[in-house]
Amino acid sequence: MMQSFAKISDLRKVLKNERMNGKSISLVPTMGFLHEGHMSLIKEARKKNDIVVVSIFVNPTQFGPNEDLETYPRDLEKDSILCEKEGVDYIFNPTVNEMYLDDYATFVDTTSNITNRLCGASRDGHFRGVMSVVTKLFNIVNPDRAYFGRKDYQQVAVIKKMVNDLSFNVEIVDCEIVREEDGLALSSRNTYLTKEQRIDALVLSRSLKEAKEEILKGERNKEKIVNGILDKISKVTYSIVDYVEVLDAKTLEDIEEINRDVVIALAVNIGKPRLIDNIIVEV
Amino acid sequence: MMQSFAKISDLRKVLKNERMNGKSISLVPTMGFLHEGHMSLIKEARKKNDIVVVSIFVNPTQFGPNEDLETYPRDLEKDSILCEKEGVDYIFNPTVNEMYLDDYATFVDTTSNITNRLCGASRDGHFRGVMSVVTKLFNIVNPDRAYFGRKDYQQVAVIKKMVNDLSFNVEIVDCEIVREEDGLALSSRNTYLTKEQRIDALVLSRSLKEAKEEILKGERNKEKIVNGILDKISKVTYSIVDYVEVLDAKTLEDIEEINRDVVIALAVNIGKPRLIDNIIVEV
Repeated sequence: MMQSFAKISDLRKVLKNERMNGKSISLVPTMGFLHEGHMSLIKEARKKNDIVVVSIFVNPTQFGPNEDLETYPRDLEKDSILCEKEGVDYIFNPTVNEMYLDDYATFVDTTSNITNRLCGASRDGHFRGVMSVVTKLFNIVNPDRAYFGRKDYQQVAVIKKMVNDLSFNVEIVDCEIVREEDGLALSSRNTYLTKEQRIDALVLSRSLKEAKEEILKGERNKEKIVNGILDKISKVTYSIVDYVEVLDAKTLEDIEEINRDVVIALAVNIGKPRLIDNIIVEV
Repeated sequence: MMQSFAKISDLRKVLKNERMNGKSISLVPTMGFLHEGHMSLIKEARKKNDIVVVSIFVNPTQFGPNEDLETYPRDLEKDSILCEKEGVDYIFNPTVNEMYLDDYATFVDTTSNITNRLCGASRDGHFRGVMSVVTKLFNIVNPDRAYFGRKDYQQVAVIKKMVNDLSFNVEIVDCEIVREEDGLALSSRNTYLTKEQRIDALVLSRSLKEAKEEILKGERNKEKIVNGILDKISKVTYSIVDYVEVLDAKTLEDIEEINRDVVIALAVNIGKPRLIDNIIVEV
């Protein structure tokens, strides 16, 4: 029987008991409005761990002042049903006040280049907010394993770096992007798309897939790959590009030419929502 | 039989076993060169916990470029004997490389005023280094309780704030300053003092004690208290004042007059070493 907790102390109490009984504990951190992408993380956690905790918290400190914190979609009732169906043991859905007292003022941040580009460049303070809230969730749940989706490719890299640098005793498991049948990467923000924009949005996954094929056929010129994608995106009505980049898949550092494994990552506004997607190419 | 570990993974292994057996675990973080101040923390930890871990690590990230990292006194052999005598279970003495890989780049920091003044003002980045290394030690040891000395009054306040803000599941126990019979607060840096400077250094504890008496007799004027201390310190040969401040004992914020519990804190170079001391006055 799944249980939900809004209080840190209540969740800690049950998890202490589980741990005393030798149970392995996993955490799937989410902002709720769960879709098949989240469910794939939950299923993976369910397979490998005795206990699955899903946190549902729309974390204000990772949103910029002009971003969609207020309107970010929420549906706790539906989320609970989905979690129960997948055999989740505990939902943790704290209020903002439970997580952040008025005088909250401590942050985890990095001086590494890893947050300078991609979403870090256009979303000032975003990864500081992510690192800090994930630190809190790790400290609250103390999981053996934590599950993250590769759609947020840079987030996974940042979290792995943080775990190494700060000696967190948790294994980070990253899971593949889940897509609709037509290729669109699942996102809670897809709910903002109109019917027409939903069709336009397909250009993202399609151009990534085609770029991968070009590289696998031998293309090594980074600019050509980026420009090819930009061309395709510019042809749909509702697109405004934030970035399209080809980077070292491991360090997220700039490359001169495509002579190692790379990630092609993009962020594009399609109408209202800013959508992200990426693809790894092993050369 | 006490054991010493230099590897994070080795320490984790034994502590995992202790925890599986239901043992409570305590951590006393130190930079070594142990004196009676440290020993009082260890004794306190010994009384209340099944397992006592003492970390001995001169943490480079909390030293400024012109500070005494290289010359900071070290004596691991003597430290080990002292720890064994007090019934310490495990010493953790990692190398710098074990704690910080070459690409280390993640930090814990605060935007609170708590680090703007006192040692935070004169030691740029000091508390960022402290918060980050304590985070690492907490993540490595996962202690139920951690012990800190009140001589580093601001450090205790910063750590308590960090624990609250980042939801660390650890109780911070702060212990009283241990002094020589003549009043000098114990410090590993006292070893730098010449015989004459050792006598000069007594002005610190003496002027704090006299200031406390004046406040308890009814003095409420902050400037008078500070100037009284500065006068006394200026009369000894080897003193160069970094700061003398009277602050809210809890928040470390500025006060207009002495109308609540305060801490009087000072940092003064006496010859080579920069010494700190403080006293709490409950009004």
